This record gives sequence, structure tokens and C-alpha cells, in this order.
Amino acid sequence: MTGSVSVIGLGLIGGSLVRAADAAGWKVRGATRSESTAAAARDAGFDVTSSLENLLRDTADDALVVLAVPLPAVTDVLAVLPHHAPRCRLTDVVSIKQPVAAAVARRAPQARYVGGHPMAGTSASGWSAGTATLFSGASWVVGSDDGADLEVWAQVARLALDCGAHVVPAGAADHDAAVARVSHLPHVLAAVLASVGADGGPLAMALGAGSFADGTRVAASAPDLVRAMCEGNRDALLDAVDDALGRLGAARGSLASTGALAATLQAGHRARQAFEDRHRANGTTEVDLAAPGALHQLREIGQSGGRVITVEGTRCRARV
Amino acid sequence: MTGSVSVIGLGLIGGSLVRAADAAGWKVRGATRSESTAAAARDAGFDVTSSLENLLRDTADDALVVLAVPLPAVTDVLAVLPHHAPRCRLTDVVSIKQPVAAAVARRAPQARYVGGHPMAGTSASGWSAGTATLFSGASWVVGSDDGADLEVWAQVARLALDCGAHVVPAGAADHDAAVARVSHLPHVLAAVLASVGADGGPLAMALGAGSFADGTRVAASAPDLVRAMCEGNRDALLDAVDDALGRLGAARGSLASTGALAATLQAGHRARQAFEDRHRANGTTEVDLAAPGALHQLREIGQSGGRVITVEGTRCRARV
Repeated sequence: MTGSVSVIGLGLIGGSLVRAADAAGWKVRGATRSESTAAAARDAGFDVTSSLENLLRDTADDALVVLAVPLPAVTDVLAVLPHHAPRCRLTDVVSIKQPVAAAVARRAPQARYVGGHPMAGTSASGWSAGTATLFSGASWVVGSDDGADLEVWAQVARLALDCGAHVVPAGAADHDAAVARVSHLPHVLAAVLASVGADGGPLAMALGAGSFADGTRVAASAPDLVRAMCEGNRDALLDAVDDALGRLGAARGSLASTGALAATLQAGHRARQAFEDRHRANGTTEVDLAAPGALHQLREIGQSGGRVITVEGTRCRARV
Repeated sequence: MTGSVSVIGLGLIGGSLVRAADAAGWKVRGATRSESTAAAARDAGFDVTSSLENLLRDTADDALVVLAVPLPAVTDVLAVLPHHAPRCRLTDVVSIKQPVAAAVARRAPQARYVGGHPMAGTSASGWSAGTATLFSGASWVVGSDDGADLEVWAQVARLALDCGAHVVPAGAADHDAAVARVSHLPHVLAAVLASVGADGGPLAMALGAGSFADGTRVAASAPDLVRAMCEGNRDALLDAVDDALGRLGAARGSLASTGALAATLQAGHRARQAFEDRHRANGTTEVDLAAPGALHQLREIGQSGGRVITVEGTRCRARV
């Protein structure tokens, strides 16, 4: 038994977490508002209740509570938390970190909160879409702003590692700026591309092949979930959209004037190469969570593209 | 033996065509300027020469000659054609149709030319990347402008069908407008997205997952090939880029003012759904290539999202 985890919300991510943590030997409890999801999860052998109150009352002091509901539902859950488990160890899997941190500070100020975000998903959603392997090989951001509770940090990191992910330490603002570029903007561009293709009528749709299929894949995701994610990260997403508008406008100008797209395409090719090479680093470094400056060290690892691959006691090993 | 085909250029598409046509029982000859590619193709058992002149001289009158070189090399090949096979049956697999048609009209006006474009590819290139199954399930546009030689049209269509593709009949201008939206714009947006991601530094690269990987996949393609394709379709691509800029600008405005992305995301979701449903039609219709108005009928099939699935003699069956 490596620890206890109570998962609130059993959609794609929460449902996958329940399965993955269980497979890794954690003692897992779950709660969902949906009676049918609760029934399906119980049928699959999991300890799941449809009463959030019951879940929180039964959660042990050293258990980790995971908020796995969409951002708009976070506030509702946080309203209940202080009545049943005010000082609980708390993390989340929401795709934006600053709004969750602000909501926790306001609604559940005594909770020992360390944010989290597993960078995994599919265009499907709901309990039935979840799998125990969803997080395998994924990056799992663990919040590392100054003041974070390092005992909880280590517990969240161990859960992520046990689920097959590697841990990327990052501050909430840095996380939100990064995911605006590599997660939220891709959804906006996929929607735009899909619409421009459809504007071309049935012939254009019939001719869509690999590049169009890949470029629009995430437009198949449930629009409401994507909205919550993108709209919740408005300021950072505006920066990313402006960057994209600037680059696309420059490509337009160059194509119209000299007919050339070389600068756009070569920059994109180099960037894609950098993305494919992102895990090539193979140096290692260690961080002692009990030493002063540990959080600063962890953030530096994340900023430089590194990742934590083991946590034993207070010792973290990272690949950088 | 279902026919003879002489393929000029043995990159990804030409090399795959050689393999696929051979597997389907066509008598296949190939030519490439690259001695090493010629040697590799001969090692694989194919009848390949490094002399374009020899290929053309040995090509039978009823054989189909396929231009499978990138657009910038088309003119060079067409300069040689009239000296050895002026009235040959000619098609191509270049990703833009109007410039090729114009070049043929100028350089090889006696050739019996019907344009073609198989909508298949990978981000890899060259002979070694080719496979006999590349065209399986793909759309293969066959040029259907007024005046097209219907005997050659049927031969190109049979080749496409024998390679596992289905045939989408389209005029050159309609083809170019459609691929600007579903093939060239995706490459431009992939390059823009990759660069915006890289602008976020190593942390952003480390957090890139499914949506970023899919949205930037084609930025891994050889930039020179993508340039030739996009720059050769400048006017239609400008329309598509302007449509994208307009939609992205509207999303930006809405996000900045009301914070809402619903319109953008819902339109994109509907469009992606239309794309996924594009082959759902299951009515059939027939076209007699010997009857008046056949080319008009064929273009209507393509415009409405239909595709030709068999050609026997002068009878085409299409799913619409």
C-alpha cells in the first residue's frame, strides 16, 4: 500500500486516475454526482460513492484528495470541503492552475493544496473513456510556487510517477502561460481550420486527408470542456493567439508580396524538431525537498525542460 | 495485365505508385534522376532507368505517363517530353492542378493530359518511404475540366482505383481552391503553431502533448516540398489564410471582450463532425463517359462530395 487517494469527479481524467492509482497499489476512493457513473465504477470493482460528503468524511488525514472536476465545478466542491475535511491534503487535475489556486485560497484556505495537471487526454470524455494507462509517459505538472507544502508535493509527485507519468515542476503562472501555447491554442486553431475547411464545401471535405485530419482532431472534443479550459486561461491564451495572429499575418504578407513562405515554414520545421527532441536530455540532478531553496530548484528544472523521475523520501531525481 | 504506366520521379508518391501499380498487375516502368534511387528501385525488382529519354522512348503508345516530380521540376520534364513522346497519354500527381495544366499547355500541347492528385502522404519523403498501400482508401482527384480526353480520364481513374483509392472528379480551379483549405492551410497553421509553442521555451515544449503533437505533425515535413506546394497555389491559399485570419481574429476579439469562445469552438466542432461524416453517403449513380455532358456530371459528383468507385469500359459507378 503506497498511500490513499480520494478522487472527486470520475470523468476521463478522474476515472483514469482511479484505475491507474488502483493498479499501482494505492487505496482509492471515488465520488461522482452521477448515479450511473457511480454504478458503473462500482460494477468495475471500485469504492465509489455518489455522496461527496461521505467521501470526505471517510477520507483519512494522510490521504490525498484530488479535485478531478471541470473548472466551473471546482467552486462547488470547494464550498463543501471545509465542512468535512478543512485541513486535507489537496491537489487537482484541472488544466489551468492560477484560477484553481485562487479558488482554493478563497474557499478552503486551510487545505494543504499543491496543484497538479497531467498532460494527457483524448477527444473522448466520461468514465467509460478512462484507462489505467492514460498517464503512461505523460508530463504531470506539480505546482511548485514558493510556499508549497513539500510533504504534499512529494505525495502528489509519487502519485503521478506511480501512474506512469513524469513530473514537471512549475509555478502556476508559468504553467498557464505554457499550456496556453501548447494546449489551448491548438484547440482554437483546430476549430478555425475545421471551419475554413468546411467553408470549402463538400469537395473540400472529401479531399481532406492526413494534414487536415490531424490538424482538426481536437475539434472533435466536447466544446463545453474546451471552452471551460480556454476561457479560464483568458489572459495567457490572448498572448498565444496574438502571437499566432502575428505569425499568420506575417506569412500572409510575405505570400501576397513576394510569394514566399520559406521563413514561416522553416521556423515551424525547426520548432517541431525542438519538440521532437524535448526528451533527449539525459543528464540527471537531485533535489532534497528538505533543503532550503528546494522549490526554486524544482522550478528551474521545469523551466529548462527537465522532469522529475523518482521521489524517495525527500530525495527527487530529475532528468535535465 | 491491366495496362502500362511509366512513372517519372520516384519520391514518396512516385515510389509508392510504382509499388502499388505493380502489385495491381500493371506493367510499370520508372525513371529517376537519382542513380542511388534507381539502384534501390532496381534492387527491389522494378524496371527503372535514370534516363528520362530512355523511359519515354520505350513507352508504348497506350501507356500512361505519370509526372511524379515536385512542381518546380515539372517544367524540366515537360521540356523533354515533346521530343520523345509528343502525343503521349499524360497525368501527374502534383498537389496543385492549374499550374501543371498551364505548363502542359505551353510545353507539351499535343500530350493527352488529364491531371491527377492522390490525397495521400506522410511527413517522410523519398523512395524508401514509399509503400504499395499509401493510396489505400485515399481520395484521388482526376481532372474533369471541359475538353478532357475521356479515354485518358478512364485510364487514370482505373489506375487510381487499382491502387486502392477512390476517384474524386474535379476541375483544376475547384481542386486548387479546395486543397488550399484542407491541405496547404494545415501546413501553414502547423508551422505557426509549432513556432508559437517554441516561443514558450523548454517548459512549453515539455508540456506539449496530444493536441500539440497532432497540430504540428506536418511541420515535420521537408520545408522545401511544402513551400513548392503552398507557393504554387498562392491565390487560393491567400483566400484560405484570409478566412483563417478572419476567424482567428474574431475568436480573439470575442475572447478579449466577453471572454467567450463558444462560437468559434462550436463552429469548429460542427465542421469536424461534417468531415468525419464525409463518406457516410451511400446512394449510387452512374455516368456513361461516352454520353454528352459526362464531364459536367463527373464534376457535379465531386462538388457534392461524391466519389467514383468503379470504372468498367465507359461506365463509371459513383457513391453520392
